[in-house]
Amino acid sequence: MKNKIYVIKIGGNVIDDEVNLASFLQSFAALEGYKILVHGGGKLATQMAAQLNIPQQMIDGRRITDAATLKIVTMVYAGYINKNIVAKLNSHQLYAIGLSGTDGQLMKAHKRQHPTIDYGFVGDIDSVDGDLLRKLVEKNFCPVIAPITADSEGNLLNTNADTIAQEIAQALSSAFDVKLIYCFEKAGVLRDVDDETSIIPLITKNNFQSLVEENIIFAGMLPKLHNAFAALEKGVGAVTIGKWDQLKTIANKQSGTTIAHE
Amino acid sequence: MKNKIYVIKIGGNVIDDEVNLASFLQSFAALEGYKILVHGGGKLATQMAAQLNIPQQMIDGRRITDAATLKIVTMVYAGYINKNIVAKLNSHQLYAIGLSGTDGQLMKAHKRQHPTIDYGFVGDIDSVDGDLLRKLVEKNFCPVIAPITADSEGNLLNTNADTIAQEIAQALSSAFDVKLIYCFEKAGVLRDVDDETSIIPLITKNNFQSLVEENIIFAGMLPKLHNAFAALEKGVGAVTIGKWDQLKTIANKQSGTTIAHE
Repeated sequence: MKNKIYVIKIGGNVIDDEVNLASFLQSFAALEGYKILVHGGGKLATQMAAQLNIPQQMIDGRRITDAATLKIVTMVYAGYINKNIVAKLNSHQLYAIGLSGTDGQLMKAHKRQHPTIDYGFVGDIDSVDGDLLRKLVEKNFCPVIAPITADSEGNLLNTNADTIAQEIAQALSSAFDVKLIYCFEKAGVLRDVDDETSIIPLITKNNFQSLVEENIIFAGMLPKLHNAFAALEKGVGAVTIGKWDQLKTIANKQSGTTIAHE
Repeated sequence: MKNKIYVIKIGGNVIDDEVNLASFLQSFAALEGYKILVHGGGKLATQMAAQLNIPQQMIDGRRITDAATLKIVTMVYAGYINKNIVAKLNSHQLYAIGLSGTDGQLMKAHKRQHPTIDYGFVGDIDSVDGDLLRKLVEKNFCPVIAPITADSEGNLLNTNADTIAQEIAQALSSAFDVKLIYCFEKAGVLRDVDDETSIIPLITKNNFQSLVEENIIFAGMLPKLHNAFAALEKGVGAVTIGKWDQLKTIANKQSGTTIAHE
């Protein structure tokens, strides 16, 4: 039987609030077994860009990463956020080690090519060195991954943290039973978006289509679920979406929405 | 016989100039054998502080690191500079891995205590995990070290890069024959400060005292040499000070000033 590993992604709703972050990191540190933390960026990069008078262009909710913005996200994601998380986890007796996609050549990436939109210095991932992560966790290290990658010419690239978490989960699936957990601001996928108790505990291919047809799953949640099913297809054991302050019960499958084969 | 390892420190004179940095990194990548790069900060942090209207206080040439400045140096050193160096080295087929002192608990540090001056969030190093560095280099990784550490409570600390290089060299000296190289803007310790060809190739305890008495070594160079002798005392094989664009010949002992037992 393969060992279990958690790949857990946190975003701005945790990172932007010092108290929330400290609370989350305490729960994360207490989680038993192999684990990897992937963090996004939060509002700090946007704030920093405003303070430095660097205008931010968004297309379809995606940041266009010009050279000045790349510098900011590299500083904020791989520097400030990553090192603060690592230091805090280590104060909880972990051996957290902060890595971007370029460190140890963990990820190979390339600048996004798009027929009509120039996203700037945005990276799409070609591959993840799952073996490097396996060796690290087996030696008791806890990788903390910042969403910055690089191309083969050494140009840094801003990269979506959700995608990084998914690619890492997939790369580890041959060696581990991977539990991929997305922590966000809702308690899970809700039947009624205004009712936090209306969580759908399990989504499989069997009920997914009817949830879409009933208009219970729509808009922003659809791509997340499509990505979750894609991860399952590539060997990830289960994908859970839940609230960042319920990490322990999410890990025990007592809260959140789990997307699984059956 | 112990394997040789280079611990090489670069500062602002290399980092602040993109062309210089690219040239240096090419030489560094070409250097054969085990190697670790330690980088300082350069002017970018000062520029960033100015752009963000954060006043910088210096006492005796040392930056006082208040909370806002700590955030900047963490972003610039551990984020922007470190990840750019790592990505560029990896484009030269290295497996560079960027680490601050807190990553993998590489260094234990504490906030500087001083009877009269409050340096702010400045770290002094208690210990370096030489075994972690040994394992990394023996697995073909090239550690690239940013001058940020943390205390046991998870507070980040701004830390002198020269000192980090020295402490790393010392921590590796039981396992390796360590060559510690400081790359700076001069070709070495000069007999005549205005004559770049007047390099003193070798300084030992035998000629050091007379060089001081003749006023050939003075001011800023004295603490560097005292640190070099301290490193030798703690097992480092040799310390060389030379110009950043002469790395290959420095490594071959054909340029720069080497401080050695004899």
